[in-house]
Amino acid sequence: MKYPFSGRMYSAPESFLGRLFAVSNNPEIISFAGGLPDSSLLDVEGIKDASSYVMEEEGREALQYTTTTGYLPLREYIAERYNKRLGIPASADDIRIVNGSQQCLDLTAKIFLDSGDAVGIENPGYLGAIEAFSMYQPVFKCVDMDDNGVLSDVFKTLFEKEKPKFFYGIPNFQNPSGRSYSDERRKEIAEIIRETDGIFYEDDAFGELSFDNKPRMPVKKYAPENTIMSGSFSKIIAPGMRIGWIYAPKEVISQFDCAKQAADLHSNFLCQKIMHRYLTSVDLDSHIRKITAAYSKKCRLMCSLCDEHLPESIVRTDPKGGMFMLLTLPKKINSLKLFEEGLKRKVAVLPGIPFYANGGGEDTVRLNFSSSTEDEIISGMKRLKDTVASFRL
Amino acid sequence: MKYPFSGRMYSAPESFLGRLFAVSNNPEIISFAGGLPDSSLLDVEGIKDASSYVMEEEGREALQYTTTTGYLPLREYIAERYNKRLGIPASADDIRIVNGSQQCLDLTAKIFLDSGDAVGIENPGYLGAIEAFSMYQPVFKCVDMDDNGVLSDVFKTLFEKEKPKFFYGIPNFQNPSGRSYSDERRKEIAEIIRETDGIFYEDDAFGELSFDNKPRMPVKKYAPENTIMSGSFSKIIAPGMRIGWIYAPKEVISQFDCAKQAADLHSNFLCQKIMHRYLTSVDLDSHIRKITAAYSKKCRLMCSLCDEHLPESIVRTDPKGGMFMLLTLPKKINSLKLFEEGLKRKVAVLPGIPFYANGGGEDTVRLNFSSSTEDEIISGMKRLKDTVASFRL
Repeated sequence: MKYPFSGRMYSAPESFLGRLFAVSNNPEIISFAGGLPDSSLLDVEGIKDASSYVMEEEGREALQYTTTTGYLPLREYIAERYNKRLGIPASADDIRIVNGSQQCLDLTAKIFLDSGDAVGIENPGYLGAIEAFSMYQPVFKCVDMDDNGVLSDVFKTLFEKEKPKFFYGIPNFQNPSGRSYSDERRKEIAEIIRETDGIFYEDDAFGELSFDNKPRMPVKKYAPENTIMSGSFSKIIAPGMRIGWIYAPKEVISQFDCAKQAADLHSNFLCQKIMHRYLTSVDLDSHIRKITAAYSKKCRLMCSLCDEHLPESIVRTDPKGGMFMLLTLPKKINSLKLFEEGLKRKVAVLPGIPFYANGGGEDTVRLNFSSSTEDEIISGMKRLKDTVASFRL
Repeated sequence: MKYPFSGRMYSAPESFLGRLFAVSNNPEIISFAGGLPDSSLLDVEGIKDASSYVMEEEGREALQYTTTTGYLPLREYIAERYNKRLGIPASADDIRIVNGSQQCLDLTAKIFLDSGDAVGIENPGYLGAIEAFSMYQPVFKCVDMDDNGVLSDVFKTLFEKEKPKFFYGIPNFQNPSGRSYSDERRKEIAEIIRETDGIFYEDDAFGELSFDNKPRMPVKKYAPENTIMSGSFSKIIAPGMRIGWIYAPKEVISQFDCAKQAADLHSNFLCQKIMHRYLTSVDLDSHIRKITAAYSKKCRLMCSLCDEHLPESIVRTDPKGGMFMLLTLPKKINSLKLFEEGLKRKVAVLPGIPFYANGGGEDTVRLNFSSSTEDEIISGMKRLKDTVASFRL
């Protein structure tokens, strides 16, 4: 039997995420290839208490169908946190709950992209976004980055000449590079999209993971009507609950509701209630400071070991938050080959290839520093040193 | 600011589900328009115990990311239940977890439908399927039903002449009609798809809700390679947990995994674990018998009140399970007008219109009997009687 699959299935990039999970299941391998938060920092006790409360007090409601928009008190909490942290006048009406911010990628692509449409993305850009968008068969327009963010002159030309439906970026602690946009760059981006009636899709999955715990102003603040923002509790509370959100202009929210309803009616209500109970029972800022202190320490450790163990021809980024850094390799080292050689020495790095929507990445690898222990980082970086040495530069 | 939405957003049918929730929020209205399971039959205590167990014993794992495929023990449970109930040799490899079977509609459409492709559906057919499929801009090919299921001669001509990518149907206690396919009709459908290399998408959301608690053989049993089946715990356990599944041939599962990963990485892991713990701690058959006994009683009550209160020119279906029945109205009564007049008398029925993918349904309304109490059914049917009387037939 031959199954008549749709054209989009043939245009989808081969997925790396599944292979990553396979690697991460081998306990002998120290993996810097994944993207998991540190399990030991999950507040299991706090979430257990919240879960007991919800099942005891609101179980019958939490187990029934609910509205597509998401649990109102949870949306109000998210809006209020935007107000307090960033001084943004968000309201619950502007916010919808989704199954982790990955679903936001899918649904936003769905409501904007027709086959052949241009969509902008950072180069390198988040592979989950490339996978989600690819399903709608767009033409990717990649814009390179420097240490201050996406290159604004190229970004401007893109919006003036090619009119992408939207541009997707991660201004805070980008995946895969760990870079952040400078405030000046954010303002430039905001001005360009305002002037060209463009749309910036601002993925802020990592914004709360700032090592200095200081908020950075989102592009959304400078160009509210031109920015679709997404956020997630996956990195700061619990990815297994799959709760993220979109924060967008009303016209976008209205279309988003149609797409969300057609996609799965609504997100898990039980976990929305547990999340809300948890958020309103704990000191979230203190919990986040615990995470960022741990990640900051691991990041500094990994950076110093890069500097110590790796040749100068390998250049690293310098993350100020988040979970990732990017290595740029000399010509003699191919990232896929480094991946394969690393596995032989029981260390996994992630070749940059899936992050380049239009090809590339043979000269970059992504390293994750959040999910390994400090001991694992020390051992893993030694293994990486040996792996690199085997290339005889 | 004008937002450049995709073409599919303009081809999407106006949604009814959102309006239904609005109606269901007015406590003065007795609503037969919704599709909720009876909240009083939710096993809140049992799920609370399962939830406490998971948070206590496996909390740290349940709160972390997991695989796209879904929780293996849960998939094994589902496969084993197919083996035991229906004698189908399902294995966990053939099963994937989704966010309620609504997500199965979206992802199956995504992997099969290109814009302009033909897709078959019952007439009337499930509105959630019409909404989900519409996002991929197919051409709907509707096939009428009689009391034994979809008309097999029309079904056959459709597959011979128009080659739809797949045909979507609900053989057990169909939504909206409450009708079921006879065993003979299932075998005919199976033979047609086998002979034409066609695909039948067999939505079995209601199969366990059989009033006689006897299983009916799915089309999947007669044509396994040509059938994609979906199931759900929403009607028998808890819709708020959003756990459904697809059961499909391996080639389909492989594409489905790509689509699921791009859509939201994986379904809520915490609730997958709670669901599995619940299923393996309770007597599920006994719980289901409790539900079917209650629904059967409510259904018989509503049927007898239809026969007593409504004129002979209004014809009802005769459900043997599920949650719905369909009324066919005489020409003088328009279903939308009946809806509006009903609201004035504080009873809500659902006009058939959104269930007809290519138009129609002005002469049908769907009634739900699962979510109202017997007293509400008695009062609501009196209100419906008065509403119908106002049309002066």
